[in-house]
Amino acid sequence: MNNITDIHYGPLPADSPYVKPFRFHYTQNGKQKSWDLLKVHDSVSIVIYNVTRKKLVFVKQFRPAVYHGIISGDGVQPGSIDMTKYPPEIAVTLELCAGIIDKPISTIEIAREEVLEECGYDIPVERIEHIMRYRSGVGTSGAEQTLFYAEVTDADKVSSAGGGVDDEIIDVVEYDLDEARKLTEKGTVITSPPSFLFGVLWFLTNRAPKS
Amino acid sequence: MNNITDIHYGPLPADSPYVKPFRFHYTQNGKQKSWDLLKVHDSVSIVIYNVTRKKLVFVKQFRPAVYHGIISGDGVQPGSIDMTKYPPEIAVTLELCAGIIDKPISTIEIAREEVLEECGYDIPVERIEHIMRYRSGVGTSGAEQTLFYAEVTDADKVSSAGGGVDDEIIDVVEYDLDEARKLTEKGTVITSPPSFLFGVLWFLTNRAPKS
Repeated sequence: MNNITDIHYGPLPADSPYVKPFRFHYTQNGKQKSWDLLKVHDSVSIVIYNVTRKKLVFVKQFRPAVYHGIISGDGVQPGSIDMTKYPPEIAVTLELCAGIIDKPISTIEIAREEVLEECGYDIPVERIEHIMRYRSGVGTSGAEQTLFYAEVTDADKVSSAGGGVDDEIIDVVEYDLDEARKLTEKGTVITSPPSFLFGVLWFLTNRAPKS
Repeated sequence: MNNITDIHYGPLPADSPYVKPFRFHYTQNGKQKSWDLLKVHDSVSIVIYNVTRKKLVFVKQFRPAVYHGIISGDGVQPGSIDMTKYPPEIAVTLELCAGIIDKPISTIEIAREEVLEECGYDIPVERIEHIMRYRSGVGTSGAEQTLFYAEVTDADKVSSAGGGVDDEIIDVVEYDLDEARKLTEKGTVITSPPSFLFGVLWFLTNRAPKS
């Protein structure tokens, strides 16, 4: 997964299909204002609990944006990245199974596909529970994310699936409830998004079996 | 707050100080890949509990990126926004007190300033508790956010402060614990970021007084 070399970066081409930046203009209480933002896809994320193993199922992957966030925070300029000092492992994130909404099927069907493609569990949409909707990146993108919950068993596992499709390279990892709870506690420093932390804590509060 | 008119948007100027988009290149397992991303500021957010009133203190504000996320999700093009159909209120968010790290002072000092500027409570850094660090926008920006917790009292309130500084227009709102808990429950549809939901649920789990 982490055999990553030759990292460099440059300007965004005008025709990027993924990141479409804009300057937004408006008048508030008579004063003209502007705000710079970008359009990104809406998305889904799924808290997955394997009841056979009593484990939460998460994904790990190398995230270029996190790598860039770390090195640019240190003042590293494009073209001069010291990969000994900044190995790719610093930007491997722990996340919920998730995906963008980029085709005309229902949100829950997108969630079903991501559970299969990323984590290798083949379950019908009837076993996926809609939890809530919120807005990620309220300062920059405002995209909607829908959170789902699904319980799976080892019998749902498809051995040929999981790990991502096309160019994705994703590791599936399992955490027991104590390990997961520690991630949500004071002192945590983690390359995970807040939607991961919320999803885990929501599960622990509302769905985790009592020990 | 919501007297907002004349919304329109256009291309991002190349010299935006807020949104700096890039194309990131790397080789993973021998295959050349790219990822489009942007640099945004790291930030802080603070869960504030007013012990005098037994209320959580949140902020509401108009968020252009959320407005854009909603209208562009509906296929509305630049220059043709029907503000009767899409009033600005649809993009007023409920958030934790928060702010970007854009000056060379410590993270906790930034948090102290935001508590004063946005919510009007003047407290020393010794009363601000560091909770955790995570990465927001792992797909697009990977910026670091540090979560803090602070208990305040009515005696800490500075009547001339709060509501934002410079161009900010921010409403301060208070939620009791039952109201806040409802926001974290199944069925919620909210124009809030997941960091808000996590901060609230973290407080309810770890710091809320038992009733």
